[in-house]
Amino acid sequence: MRDFSTDHRWLSINTATVRKSRGVEVLLPDIIEACARRGIRAISPWRDQVAAAGVDVVARLLKTHDMQLSGYCRGGMFPDTDAKGRQAAYDDNRRAIDEACALGAPCLVLVVGGLPGALQGKPAHKDIDLARTQVSYGIAKLLDYAGTCGMPLAIEPLHPMYAAERACINTLEQALDVCDALDPMKSGAEPGTRRAALGVAVDAYHVWWDPKLKAQIERAGKNRLLALHVCDWLVPTNDLLNDRGMMGDGVIDLPQLRGWVEAQGFAGYSEVEIFSSANWWQRDIGEVLDMCISRHRSAV
Amino acid sequence: MRDFSTDHRWLSINTATVRKSRGVEVLLPDIIEACARRGIRAISPWRDQVAAAGVDVVARLLKTHDMQLSGYCRGGMFPDTDAKGRQAAYDDNRRAIDEACALGAPCLVLVVGGLPGALQGKPAHKDIDLARTQVSYGIAKLLDYAGTCGMPLAIEPLHPMYAAERACINTLEQALDVCDALDPMKSGAEPGTRRAALGVAVDAYHVWWDPKLKAQIERAGKNRLLALHVCDWLVPTNDLLNDRGMMGDGVIDLPQLRGWVEAQGFAGYSEVEIFSSANWWQRDIGEVLDMCISRHRSAV
Repeated sequence: MRDFSTDHRWLSINTATVRKSRGVEVLLPDIIEACARRGIRAISPWRDQVAAAGVDVVARLLKTHDMQLSGYCRGGMFPDTDAKGRQAAYDDNRRAIDEACALGAPCLVLVVGGLPGALQGKPAHKDIDLARTQVSYGIAKLLDYAGTCGMPLAIEPLHPMYAAERACINTLEQALDVCDALDPMKSGAEPGTRRAALGVAVDAYHVWWDPKLKAQIERAGKNRLLALHVCDWLVPTNDLLNDRGMMGDGVIDLPQLRGWVEAQGFAGYSEVEIFSSANWWQRDIGEVLDMCISRHRSAV
Repeated sequence: MRDFSTDHRWLSINTATVRKSRGVEVLLPDIIEACARRGIRAISPWRDQVAAAGVDVVARLLKTHDMQLSGYCRGGMFPDTDAKGRQAAYDDNRRAIDEACALGAPCLVLVVGGLPGALQGKPAHKDIDLARTQVSYGIAKLLDYAGTCGMPLAIEPLHPMYAAERACINTLEQALDVCDALDPMKSGAEPGTRRAALGVAVDAYHVWWDPKLKAQIERAGKNRLLALHVCDWLVPTNDLLNDRGMMGDGVIDLPQLRGWVEAQGFAGYSEVEIFSSANWWQRDIGEVLDMCISRHRSAV
């Protein structure tokens, strides 16, 4: 297991973590500059932030600062009630892949979607099996396009509390079942790195509770472990979406999890992704980034 | 599958559902009277409510109204940091079994506990595997005592969002793994009904998201299916603990779930358990019970 205690060369910042500074929206170029000033070598940006700044501008900025991506957030949201909606989702996912390629991302993270309309508070139906079937179909179709430009797709299982609105893939086992069904040979988008064309993003927040976690990480192996996200689970958790904790402030044994992932050969970035409307988004971006660096060294 | 549309003979009310009426605490005898007036034949009471009224008083009231129990809430909370604490948990669980016997409950529901101290906001450690080991040990020990009075123990897997504070058994598969490990022969506490001494309580709220749900219900079979709890998952859900929905108001396909359970031979009560601080606990108990009856017929 890599020693993180003396530097932060393997720290990446998911830009949602510093989406707001003192409650005010921060633009992506400013996030990149703030990270670069602290020697942070990687980020994982969100599509809306990239769109606001412009893909080309962001690509140039990354190059200027010799900054890498640990992933690109995000594709997915496949289920819909009609073919037109599913086609629109597919088209949007292709654009996400194009952007991920333009930015040199190592993978496109997929938040696969849940019951159509549920995110808007109006679920069209209750058939989560149907949604899961549509997710598999959507990924299968997207996989062909992703292959043309060699962009790995990382299915991110989301915590079961998001099953209705955000993602009906809720365990690592389920995500790997989809991987095995759609790409049983673990086709390599990047043969040199043995990174599979279809794999998973392991986010500590979503999977820490799972009694089968270690076994499924072993099952995934190096080929399918495309990303590692960290934050912490607070007790109590006061909001289902935006009350994630800074690493070390909650109950997740992050070193153990990282140990399991690295035992498989994962040697990528540890990406900090914290949604925190009442705490971290109310603080200054500099303070948050400094804390991420500190906790990356001491608690991950 | 039984037809619930024309009567409510298989409706049970978990008394937490009507713990408060217009925001004011309701005593258990009043809950029993209110249920009896509506022809509700069963309840599942909580220990604190029983203690407040007195076990003997409650037992007499149940007899007076020819009212059954669908379960008794609850034992569990096994993990602790020291032997003394674990012994105290064991002693308390034995008392819970005694009470369940005195009230004629068909099973004692186990909410097994999570990380010691987490419920109080001060987790003693982050070792959920240790907590799980202590849970298995605790159930094994309690099983001996439960056997002496023939009281089945129903492990209730809780939603993964409660893994830290309330229950580190979070899927039906995990619960059944414990059952198979501790009681592989499905020893029968009540041979006539083929009810196993150790089984599970299936609560729709906790398990609806699980992609392996149907398969695990089939694995449980009639012997291990000791209780069925229903309510609904709202979108959005505004509170992790107390924002459960009335059946039909959320996204859970309850008839499908009940169909799966009944296909195994389950023929017990459908127990309504709704924690709802902002909605149902603010309404009048009569209104809530009438709605439970109505939705039991139309949405379960």
